[in-house]
Amino acid sequence: MTSAELARVPFSVPWRATYAMIADALAAAGLPDADAARCAELMTQADLTGADGHGIFRLPQYVRRLKADGFNKQPNITVSRTAPATAIVDGDNGMGHLVMSRAADEAIAIARESGASWVGVRRSNHAGPAGLYAEMPAAQGMIALYAAVANANHMATWGGADLLLGTNPLAIGVPTGDKPLVFDMATSIVAYGTVKKYALRGLTMPEGWFVDAASGAPITDPAKSAAGLLLPMGEYKGSGLALMIGLIAGVLNSAAFGRDVIDFNADDKSETNTGHFIAAIDIARFVPLQAFTAEVDRHVRDLRHSRRLPGVDAIRLPGDRRAACRDERARDGVPVPAPLLVQLDKLAAELQIKPLRAR
Amino acid sequence: MTSAELARVPFSVPWRATYAMIADALAAAGLPDADAARCAELMTQADLTGADGHGIFRLPQYVRRLKADGFNKQPNITVSRTAPATAIVDGDNGMGHLVMSRAADEAIAIARESGASWVGVRRSNHAGPAGLYAEMPAAQGMIALYAAVANANHMATWGGADLLLGTNPLAIGVPTGDKPLVFDMATSIVAYGTVKKYALRGLTMPEGWFVDAASGAPITDPAKSAAGLLLPMGEYKGSGLALMIGLIAGVLNSAAFGRDVIDFNADDKSETNTGHFIAAIDIARFVPLQAFTAEVDRHVRDLRHSRRLPGVDAIRLPGDRRAACRDERARDGVPVPAPLLVQLDKLAAELQIKPLRAR
Repeated sequence: MTSAELARVPFSVPWRATYAMIADALAAAGLPDADAARCAELMTQADLTGADGHGIFRLPQYVRRLKADGFNKQPNITVSRTAPATAIVDGDNGMGHLVMSRAADEAIAIARESGASWVGVRRSNHAGPAGLYAEMPAAQGMIALYAAVANANHMATWGGADLLLGTNPLAIGVPTGDKPLVFDMATSIVAYGTVKKYALRGLTMPEGWFVDAASGAPITDPAKSAAGLLLPMGEYKGSGLALMIGLIAGVLNSAAFGRDVIDFNADDKSETNTGHFIAAIDIARFVPLQAFTAEVDRHVRDLRHSRRLPGVDAIRLPGDRRAACRDERARDGVPVPAPLLVQLDKLAAELQIKPLRAR
Repeated sequence: MTSAELARVPFSVPWRATYAMIADALAAAGLPDADAARCAELMTQADLTGADGHGIFRLPQYVRRLKADGFNKQPNITVSRTAPATAIVDGDNGMGHLVMSRAADEAIAIARESGASWVGVRRSNHAGPAGLYAEMPAAQGMIALYAAVANANHMATWGGADLLLGTNPLAIGVPTGDKPLVFDMATSIVAYGTVKKYALRGLTMPEGWFVDAASGAPITDPAKSAAGLLLPMGEYKGSGLALMIGLIAGVLNSAAFGRDVIDFNADDKSETNTGHFIAAIDIARFVPLQAFTAEVDRHVRDLRHSRRLPGVDAIRLPGDRRAACRDERARDGVPVPAPLLVQLDKLAAELQIKPLRAR
């Protein structure tokens, strides 16, 4: 390997070390200890489940925003029940992880009472991977739908050249007899976190991810992606779905969408007014939970053991990769690329906390 | 034009004529007059809005199934409210259009009371285009989500070679100050109705739609598609979404999914136990309806007037094509391809009703 290649090999760090580093850094940046611990827990879940763009990778940015007072460090998160099945959560510009955890709890509580719930969220912030929140009701015997307005517009509407749409993710959680199925997709052809990972590791992107807004020509250098358009998943389908999610997770909740979205990668100070929704459906109101999970398990077995196309080594279902990754990384540690480690060392020095390598 | 090309030019028939032909044929096949009229109305909406695989095109098949007692001609459609926000509709094997209309009414009524609703449907049948049902709550100031388990398995799970997944469609309706936005997508790369349309017109399909299950090689002849695998939208994303919809629209409602799906193209007799869900969200519980539609209109204007990529003549948003098509076809008539006209003449003779050309 050349030294450049070697620099791309990530260090593996035990998750307890990344967790402790995140919790200490957020607390040192001004978050109350309990809130710092809760955010660290969810960011560590992101790292363990392979959502590399959403774990410790985000720490330098979150600390920057905390120091710039872009987040409210002591938010008064309020929940208004507006009907038997609906609620609006106002995050008071707190960290998205705290706001969305509260909203997921509420969605579960309402669905327990009313059979189904629809919880809209406004004045929140970036909350990490969508799958995290879809998994919460699923762990309580419920089906979950979660979506969010992404915190920067990297897409245009299909055929357009203005950055008016985000990668607005959708996640669905369904309980099984074992680990829940967790479907988590960006409405873009890849998540923007993946692009950032490519940039961090100095990799070239495949054609078909980004095009130049003026010429429509492909862009493959992740460093030049900011000037381009990230393409939607499935052409007009991903674009249409990103729009509908934007209206339901954003506009319905009086949260930002379209031209009003704050690019939180570029701006550490302005309130983002991030919108999400989470809905839960109590399975027991439709069919006994055990009958449901037994049927799901039967269908999952059918799919998993189906014949395969030539060259395919195994069938992967939604949530398989995150479950396998969680096992592997709990054992072997979280990979931290060298450039990120350099950033984290600098951060530790700034905040006067123990560096990651010493943990 | 060659005579073969000429044969592909569809006749244009006024929608009142296609409507009357559908209503008369369904009634002659044994459906009560009011039910025949309701189905004809919804099938005509499909024809008018450009869902060519779901309108009069389906009439010969529906009549065949009625005559074979595959549909219950006088179903006792029941609605059980299982919690303040949930209901299960049992269609008693009636025509899907009747069952889903009833379910949409219930979803609207529950959302009016409880803010949001989740209505599961079982023992239904093919109900036409998903957009029809997403539009119903949207016309009442509500956001709607609709999905269904498709009536035949044309897809495999990503990497698999067994036909275990349908093109399970998802539709979302959102009110605006004008016509609602209606997003309607199959989770396959194209809807199977489109494949049938290609077959009927003798057209070659593009590569990337179908592959051979054994070799993985492309299939471009629609007549050979039955032996192949229809590919999902966005690779593993469409496959994952089709699975999750199958579990939520099918398994949750004790309706068919996976190996249990009856191929209603091949089998006119067996009960399909088709599952759907429809959810409605009453916008007024989140924000005043007029404030919502004004904001949606503002964002729609931004998107519609955004700059365009080279070679793009206009920006199209979800529902634009169906709205334009409805205007055009209400004026100019519904296109009926020559081979379908031949089938419909034969059907009219069999049922001893007036043929389409004489209407």
